[in-house]
Amino acid sequence: MRAPVSRRARPAKAPLSRDVIIETGLRVLDREGLAALTMRRVAQELDTGAASLYVYVANRDDLMTAMLDHVLGTVPDPTPADRPAAKGAVKTGTGDGNWREQLDALVDASVAVMSRHEGLALVALGAIPTSPNALALLERMLTLLDEAGLDARTRAWAVDLLYLYITAQAAEQSAYRVKGGDVEGTVAAAQQVIDALPADRYPMITGLREQMLTGGDAREVWALRVLINGILATPAR
Amino acid sequence: MRAPVSRRARPAKAPLSRDVIIETGLRVLDREGLAALTMRRVAQELDTGAASLYVYVANRDDLMTAMLDHVLGTVPDPTPADRPAAKGAVKTGTGDGNWREQLDALVDASVAVMSRHEGLALVALGAIPTSPNALALLERMLTLLDEAGLDARTRAWAVDLLYLYITAQAAEQSAYRVKGGDVEGTVAAAQQVIDALPADRYPMITGLREQMLTGGDAREVWALRVLINGILATPAR
Repeated sequence: MRAPVSRRARPAKAPLSRDVIIETGLRVLDREGLAALTMRRVAQELDTGAASLYVYVANRDDLMTAMLDHVLGTVPDPTPADRPAAKGAVKTGTGDGNWREQLDALVDASVAVMSRHEGLALVALGAIPTSPNALALLERMLTLLDEAGLDARTRAWAVDLLYLYITAQAAEQSAYRVKGGDVEGTVAAAQQVIDALPADRYPMITGLREQMLTGGDAREVWALRVLINGILATPAR
Repeated sequence: MRAPVSRRARPAKAPLSRDVIIETGLRVLDREGLAALTMRRVAQELDTGAASLYVYVANRDDLMTAMLDHVLGTVPDPTPADRPAAKGAVKTGTGDGNWREQLDALVDASVAVMSRHEGLALVALGAIPTSPNALALLERMLTLLDEAGLDARTRAWAVDLLYLYITAQAAEQSAYRVKGGDVEGTVAAAQQVIDALPADRYPMITGLREQMLTGGDAREVWALRVLINGILATPAR
């Protein structure tokens, strides 16, 4: 039998801190959606008043930015094994030539993490990344682009483009999820529109009606391959 | 002297229509911002009640989608002269080899048009383009990709990636504009953060402190060149 613990021995409320507020904000966001995320609602969840939060968080925008940074801190280290190896790529560990597999895995993981919480990708989309974990993500991508042998300016511009791609993909996936997550239904409805288009006005689209909306996850794998092939082929000079 | 016109000869109020509501919505959006754009506010502007609008527009989301489509209908025809010709490109008109210049110009024009109105890029970001003018834009891009000699699947996937890029760039530019349009101030603040980073924790970023945020418009020109080079180098098979 465990020794009894007096209720008086523990504090009535957990102490407030920026981290506690951020975690609570994420819980509210994930459970109740972006519209429900207000300073007042987060305060209520913490059994306090909104005024108490402003000691730690400037406003809702600041909270959202901090939540995004927290989430970016959970992007796992690249696990190249999750993706099929590129043809002819030598798999020998960090710094030994498999930068591309690791970059693929890092971008995929970032999209997954960022799209998991409604609205966070949009916070990233409209701002230069300057928070600690956003910068840590850029640093990791830059390390891999350095292994690829790219010059300084190309690396700097490439990481910016990759971050834009990550946020756009995450925003798109997050938007689908918010709309009930019925991706198949959305695609089927779009296919119906395409199938009904007049061929004289839209000859290209109707000619591609089999290809326009098919491909699934392979499209994303392809898109990232396009980006990286393009970066390798386009020095920023 | 002009003949007098009786006030009774003209209607007291302009007749309602879907187009009138869309144009009024855009006027409200541009003048008062996204938060002010409600069905009630648009109705007020038209000197009527919100209930009257629902005959023509299903809800605010439907209105936003219709506004986006209207705006996409104003994307001008490609004017390749606006951009410097690619080295070695032959400038001989549509269908005669300058597809790339025209695609550059079309993408640029689409970003410009879409970013001019707050929030419209976000409507595009979370949906498959199925409205008439969005499809017309895809059709124009597909025609140019066809001239580039790409296979069917690559064209279909490429136009999807280009549309994602257009919406992401537009969303980003629109977000900067909303925040007061002080792009230089935002960049300067971000540069200060980068300049103050510890080199031991962020060796790559601090090593690129001169390149991370400089380049201005040349970065966008480069990003689009990356995308198209990447598409040309990456058949979707």
